[in-house]
Amino acid sequence: MKTFASDNNAPVHPLIMKALSDVNLGDTISYGDDVYTERSVKKFKEILGENINVFFVYNGTAANVLSMSSFLNSFNAIICSDVSHINNDECGAPEKLTGCKLISIPSENGKISIDSMKKYLHSFGFEHHSQPKIVSITQSTEFGTVYQPSEIKDIADFCHKNNMLLHVDGARIANAVVTLNCDIKDITTNAGVDILSFGGTKNGMMFGEAVVFFNKDFGANFKYIRKQGMQLASKMRYISAQFEALLTDNLWLKNAEISNDMAIYLANRLKEFPSIKITKPIEANAVFAIVPGNIIPKIQEKYFFYEWDEEISEVRFMTSFCTTKTEVDEFVKVVKDLAF
Amino acid sequence: MKTFASDNNAPVHPLIMKALSDVNLGDTISYGDDVYTERSVKKFKEILGENINVFFVYNGTAANVLSMSSFLNSFNAIICSDVSHINNDECGAPEKLTGCKLISIPSENGKISIDSMKKYLHSFGFEHHSQPKIVSITQSTEFGTVYQPSEIKDIADFCHKNNMLLHVDGARIANAVVTLNCDIKDITTNAGVDILSFGGTKNGMMFGEAVVFFNKDFGANFKYIRKQGMQLASKMRYISAQFEALLTDNLWLKNAEISNDMAIYLANRLKEFPSIKITKPIEANAVFAIVPGNIIPKIQEKYFFYEWDEEISEVRFMTSFCTTKTEVDEFVKVVKDLAF
Amino acid sequence: MKTFASDNNAPVHPLIMKALSDVNLGDTISYGDDVYTERSVKKFKEILGENINVFFVYNGTAANVLSMSSFLNSFNAIICSDVSHINNDECGAPEKLTGCKLISIPSENGKISIDSMKKYLHSFGFEHHSQPKIVSITQSTEFGTVYQPSEIKDIADFCHKNNMLLHVDGARIANAVVTLNCDIKDITTNAGVDILSFGGTKNGMMFGEAVVFFNKDFGANFKYIRKQGMQLASKMRYISAQFEALLTDNLWLKNAEISNDMAIYLANRLKEFPSIKITKPIEANAVFAIVPGNIIPKIQEKYFFYEWDEEISEVRFMTSFCTTKTEVDEFVKVVKDLAF
Amino acid sequence: MKTFASDNNAPVHPLIMKALSDVNLGDTISYGDDVYTERSVKKFKEILGENINVFFVYNGTAANVLSMSSFLNSFNAIICSDVSHINNDECGAPEKLTGCKLISIPSENGKISIDSMKKYLHSFGFEHHSQPKIVSITQSTEFGTVYQPSEIKDIADFCHKNNMLLHVDGARIANAVVTLNCDIKDITTNAGVDILSFGGTKNGMMFGEAVVFFNKDFGANFKYIRKQGMQLASKMRYISAQFEALLTDNLWLKNAEISNDMAIYLANRLKEFPSIKITKPIEANAVFAIVPGNIIPKIQEKYFFYEWDEEISEVRFMTSFCTTKTEVDEFVKVVKDLAF
Repeated sequence: MKTFASDNNAPVHPLIMKALSDVNLGDTISYGDDVYTERSVKKFKEILGENINVFFVYNGTAANVLSMSSFLNSFNAIICSDVSHINNDECGAPEKLTGCKLISIPSENGKISIDSMKKYLHSFGFEHHSQPKIVSITQSTEFGTVYQPSEIKDIADFCHKNNMLLHVDGARIANAVVTLNCDIKDITTNAGVDILSFGGTKNGMMFGEAVVFFNKDFGANFKYIRKQGMQLASKMRYISAQFEALLTDNLWLKNAEISNDMAIYLANRLKEFPSIKITKPIEANAVFAIVPGNIIPKIQEKYFFYEWDEEISEVRFMTSFCTTKTEVDEFVKVVKDLAF
Repeated sequence: MKTFASDNNAPVHPLIMKALSDVNLGDTISYGDDVYTERSVKKFKEILGENINVFFVYNGTAANVLSMSSFLNSFNAIICSDVSHINNDECGAPEKLTGCKLISIPSENGKISIDSMKKYLHSFGFEHHSQPKIVSITQSTEFGTVYQPSEIKDIADFCHKNNMLLHVDGARIANAVVTLNCDIKDITTNAGVDILSFGGTKNGMMFGEAVVFFNKDFGANFKYIRKQGMQLASKMRYISAQFEALLTDNLWLKNAEISNDMAIYLANRLKEFPSIKITKPIEANAVFAIVPGNIIPKIQEKYFFYEWDEEISEVRFMTSFCTTKTEVDEFVKVVKDLAF
Repeated sequence: MKTFASDNNAPVHPLIMKALSDVNLGDTISYGDDVYTERSVKKFKEILGENINVFFVYNGTAANVLSMSSFLNSFNAIICSDVSHINNDECGAPEKLTGCKLISIPSENGKISIDSMKKYLHSFGFEHHSQPKIVSITQSTEFGTVYQPSEIKDIADFCHKNNMLLHVDGARIANAVVTLNCDIKDITTNAGVDILSFGGTKNGMMFGEAVVFFNKDFGANFKYIRKQGMQLASKMRYISAQFEALLTDNLWLKNAEISNDMAIYLANRLKEFPSIKITKPIEANAVFAIVPGNIIPKIQEKYFFYEWDEEISEVRFMTSFCTTKTEVDEFVKVVKDLAF
Repeated sequence: MKTFASDNNAPVHPLIMKALSDVNLGDTISYGDDVYTERSVKKFKEILGENINVFFVYNGTAANVLSMSSFLNSFNAIICSDVSHINNDECGAPEKLTGCKLISIPSENGKISIDSMKKYLHSFGFEHHSQPKIVSITQSTEFGTVYQPSEIKDIADFCHKNNMLLHVDGARIANAVVTLNCDIKDITTNAGVDILSFGGTKNGMMFGEAVVFFNKDFGANFKYIRKQGMQLASKMRYISAQFEALLTDNLWLKNAEISNDMAIYLANRLKEFPSIKITKPIEANAVFAIVPGNIIPKIQEKYFFYEWDEEISEVRFMTSFCTTKTEVDEFVKVVKDLAF
C-alpha cells in the first residue's frame, strides 16, 4: 500500500541494498575500525571538507541527542523551534539523555529567527536558570521549508557571539540542498554550523544517520557518548556501506530531487481542488494542506498519512525518493472520487 | 581477514540477507505497525509461548538496558556477575539510563550462584541502600559456559521469593540451547525467566535484538521507553524480516550449532599444543586459553582476537556461524608455525 | 540592609528559632524516626486532614522536583506555567532529576487556564510524544496572584479526567490562604490536589519544606526518592521542630498576613507616584511595578530587589513576615527623594 | 535517650546554636552573596590555604555527589571502597546524579590500597568501558580508621599519574586530623587532594557540609551543579554562620577530640568483657565489636545502635562531641547487667 505518511515508509534504494550485499563478505572487524567505515568517512570529507569528525549512529533521534550531548552539561539549555523533532517527536529523549532544558520558541513555517531567540538569551551566569548552550534548527524543516544559507550564517554568528553552538537537524538536509541548488558546504561548513545530524534513513537507507562535527577537535568524547548511548553498531560496516553508496554519484541528491519534485507535483495537483488549501511553502518533500474534514478518514482508508492539526483539518503528505507521478495521480484520483 | 575476535565480526547470513531483499518492496508503515513485524512476533510466540510481549531494538546493550528499565526505579539495584556484559562492556549505559546501581558479584566461569547473591540481599525497605530488584544472568555466559535449566529455575524462584525479577542476557542464547539440547522454553518460559534479551546480531543478523517479556502484562510502558531510549527503528520491517528468517526452519539453532561445533573443534586442535591451556569449559562458541605471551602479538598480526587477561596471557577466541574447519585448521597452522 | 528582593532575605522568626533551641537537647534518632517529626506530621494532619502522607526536605526546588518524581516515568511530561519556578528558577532540576519534558504554557498574571492546557493534551498513547502526567500550578503564584478554590477544583477535575495529577507549588501557600480567607483544605484537600509543596523557608523558617501527598497510599516510594535525591536530613528534628512551631497557634498564617498586608501597604504607597504603575493584582506578598528606568539603579544602591523585565522597567518588590510599615515608609521616602 | 548509633544523633553544639542566633538579625541577601558566607569562606582559607574554592551544601551525600559531578562525564567511573558511604549508604545517588559507574574495590578496615586499584585501571581510551576519572577515599573511614598523610599523598600521586583526581569524603575529617595530630593541610592541600567533602553535621552542626576544590580554577561550573542538584540554600547565612563558628577557636578539632577520646574510652571499657571483641583499630570515633548475639537486642532496648554484620554479631558504636564518660560508664553498666 502506497503511503504519504512519511519518507520513512519508503523502502531501501536498490543501490543501497546492493552495497549491503557487496560488503557481506567474510569477517570484518566490528565497531567501526574497518575499511568500509574509513571509505565512507572519506566520502563525507569530500562533500563537507577535511576539518570534520564523523560518527555513525542508528537513527535520527540518537544523532540529534548524542551529538549535542558532546557539548552539554545538564545545566545547559537547548533553544529550538516549537515544532522541532527534538521538541515534539523524540518522547523526551533530549531531556532524559542530556538532563538539559529545551527552550522551545515560536517558529514561522518551521523556522526560528534571531529575534525570537533573543528573548531567551538572558541570565547567562545566573545559576537559577538553565544556561543556553546550543541552538538547534532543522534543515529542511518539519514543515518542509528551508533556511537560506545567509540565514544559517546569521544564526551561527549569533550563536558564536553568545558563546553558543549551532546544531542542525539534517534528517532531510539533502532536500534542502536540492531546493537551494547550493553546495552543501554553503549551509553547513561555510555557514558556521558546528554540529550536523546528516540523515540517511529518510533518504533511501535502511538505517543509519551520521553525526558530523565541524571541527576536528570536536567530538573527542563522542565515542564514549555513543557507546553509553547504546548507539555503537557492532557490525558497523553495514551502516558505512550504505553511506558510501548514498554519497557516491550524488545518489543522496538524486533521491532528494525526486522526493522534492514529487511534493511540488502533488501540491500542484491538489491546487486543482478549490476546497483544498496548501498551507506551507513547498520547499522540500512535504505538502501541508487543509482538506475538508469529512473526507480525511475516507482517504485514510486507502492511504496512510498524518492529520497534523485536527482543529483546522490540516494534513501532511510526505513524498520520498520512490514516489512516482503515477502514484500521485492515482492518489489525486482517489481524493477526487471520494470527495468531489 | 578471518578474525576470532567476536561473533559480531561475522557477516550476515545469506538467508537473512535474502529476507531483507524480499521485504524491500514499496511503502510500509513505519515504527512496527506492519505485517512483517506481526509475522516475526508470531514466530517468537511459536518458540516461547503465547504469554509474551516482544519488542525489537537495534542492539544488545539497548535490549539489556531498556528491557530492565521497564521495571526499575532509579533507587533500585541490579545484581549481576562481575564479568557480565552489562557490568563491563556497556560503558555505564545501565547506570546512565536507569540511574540504578549495579551490584556485581563474584562469578565462576561466568556464572553466579544463589549463595553469592544472598550476601547482597539485605536492607530491603531501608532507604539508605539501593533496593535490589532484578538479577541479570547471561546465557550462554561471557565465558562461553551455560546455566542448566534447573539452575535457571532455581535462580528465578529465588528472585521471585525476594520480590525480584530475573533477566537473561541472551545475546548468545541460541548457543546455550544447542549445547543443552533442550527446548528454549526450558531455560526461559518454563524456568521462570521474566525478561530476555534475545540475540540476533551475533547469530547471523545485520542488526537487531529482541526484548521478550514473559508475561503479556509486562512491558506496557516499553514503547515509550524504547522511543525515549532512541531505539525505535523507523523502518522496522528490516529488523522484523531478519528475525522472521532467523526463526524460520531453525536457522537460529543451525547457526549456533556451527559456531558451537567450531569452538569445540578449535579447542580440541589447540589442545595439541602442550604450552596452550584451555581455561574454561567449552559450552558455547568461545574458547579461552592461556597462550605463551610472546606469540600473542605475532598471531595477532594475522588474526584479530582479544587478550582477555594480560597478566596470565589468557586470550579469547570466538567462533561464529560462518567459521569453517578449514579456517580453524589454517589458524592452528599459523599458531604452530609461529611458535613451535 | 533592608531588602525587597525576596521573602527569603528575611531572618528566621523568633518562635522558630526558639523551637530550634528547645529541641537541642541530647541525642535523638536521626533521619526522621523521632518524636519531633511525629508531632509535626500530626500538626499537618490537623490542618490538611488524616488522609495524607508528609515528608520533609531541605528546600523548595527539592520539594517540587522530588514530590512529582514519585509519580513520573522519564517519558512523562509536566505541564506548567511559563513563569513558574520549576520552569524558570530551578536551573533544569526537574529535567535532570525526572528526565521528563516540561511543557510550559502561557499564563496570565502567573495563572494557567484549562483552555490553555487543552492544546497540549494530545497524543496520549502515542510513543513519539512525552506523555503528560502532572499539571503543576503555583499558589500563590510567582506574580503574587492566587487561584480561587473553584479554579483549583476545576483544574484538579480536569487533570483527573485526563488521568493526570495536580501538583501545587505552595512555597507561598500561606499567603494564598490569608488572601482567600479560606480553610487551606479548600484549596488543597477538598479541591482535589494530589501533591503539595508546602513552603516553610519563605514564611519564617530557616530551612525546610514539606512534601504532602493527599492520599495515604501515595508516596510509598518517596523515602527512597528523597534519600537518592540527596534530601534526607540526618538531624531531621531540626526541620520538624520548625514546622511544629510554624503550625502552632497559626504562626504560618500570622506571618503570611503580615507580608500580605505590607505588600498592599507598599502598593498603595507606590500608587502615590504617578510615574509608577502597579502591574499585577496584589493578592499575596509581591508588588510588581513599572518604575522609571533611570531611578532603578539608584534605588538599588540602597535596597536590593530584582528587575523583572528590563525592557519595560518592571520590577518586583517582595515583602515578608518581618517587613514593617516603618520600613516601607522609609523605602518610599527613598524612592521619592531619589526621583521626584 | 542516649544513642550510640551515629554522631548525627547528637544535638547541635551550643556555640553553633549561638552563632545561628547571632546572625538572625534583619534581612540578608540570599543564596550566599552575604558577609557571613564571605567570612566563613575566609575561615576555610585560613586552614586549607588560599588556592581553594569553597561551596556549602545541605548534607554529606550532596557534598560527595555534587563535588565529584563537577569533573565527571556520565561515561566516567568512580573508584571507591566497597564499604564507602557513596557505595553503600546513598541509595544510588552517585549513579543517578552522575550517570557514572561506581567501581567498588576490596578494602581493609575501610581503606583501599593502590595495589587494589591497579586491577581496575585498564581500558583507558577503550569506549566499551566506563573510564575511571576519580578515586574516592573516606577520611576517617567508615570503619573508624585513618589514612596516614603519606598514604594519601601516594594515592593522589597515583591518581594524577593516571589522569585521575582524588576525592576525599571528609564527613569525619576532623576526627582524622585529631588522631593524626597533624595539620589538616597534611592530608589535603599538601597531599595532593583535589576535592574534599568537609563535614559539619556529624561534628556539631545542625546541617551543612562544605565542598572544597583544591584549585581556584576548579569548580567554575559548581554553582550550576549545586543549584540544579537542589542544594542551593536560600538562607545561606545559616550554613555559613555555623561553619564560621565551627572553624573558630578550633571548635571543629575540640569536638572531634572529645568524640575520639570517648571512642577510645568506650573501647577500653568494652575490653573488660572477655566475650566482646573489638574488631577494628580505634582511630576515630567508631568502635566496632563482636558482641554475643543474644544480648544485642537487649542492649538495643535501652540504646540505639546498628548491628553491622549480623552473621558474626558485629556491631558499631559511634561517639560524638557530646558523649560523656558518665554516659559511657552507664552504657557499660547496662551491658554488664544484661549479659554477664
